[in-house]
Amino acid sequence: MPFNDSFKALSDPTRRRILEMLKKSDLSVNEIAAEFDISQPSISRHLSILKNADLVSDERKGQRIIYSLNTSVFESLMGWFISFKEKGE
Amino acid sequence: MPFNDSFKALSDPTRRRILEMLKKSDLSVNEIAAEFDISQPSISRHLSILKNADLVSDERKGQRIIYSLNTSVFESLMGWFISFKEKGE
Repeated sequence: MPFNDSFKALSDPTRRRILEMLKKSDLSVNEIAAEFDISQPSISRHLSILKNADLVSDERKGQRIIYSLNTSVFESLMGWFISFKEKGE
Repeated sequence: MPFNDSFKALSDPTRRRILEMLKKSDLSVNEIAAEFDISQPSISRHLSILKNADLVSDERKGQRIIYSLNTSVFESLMGWFISFKEKGE
């Protein structure tokens, strides 16, 4: 049930806001944490939940780890929702 | 944060399966429970979570309460996902 973890990860507003930031550009944990009034370890924990749910990927670039959206999982979730538009057809 | 409850409700596979049943037609709790190997009180509890998350509506018809999808909430959620398709554009 891969969607269980996706939806659990999405049920938190901080994590949704992180995803919305990553929609605009790939970012490091420092760049993400700069937008929040919460500690960097807490942001790292949210990123770890998003990564375990396959909603984001990370990649080391030199000294930094850069986070990006995993668009294929977003497309699977979107497909699930789109199937509800076809109700009754 | 109305999406918090929506995503929490969606993180359970039984609840997603109920929603998929309601996609095809409106149903009573008995009709829903008939498709599962779990008790009717447990199905009622899942329906109550879906109703609190505004994903389903209920309506009394004579002796029965009929559940249906709340398509407007599905459309809001779908809209949130669709915004991720526009990444980088």
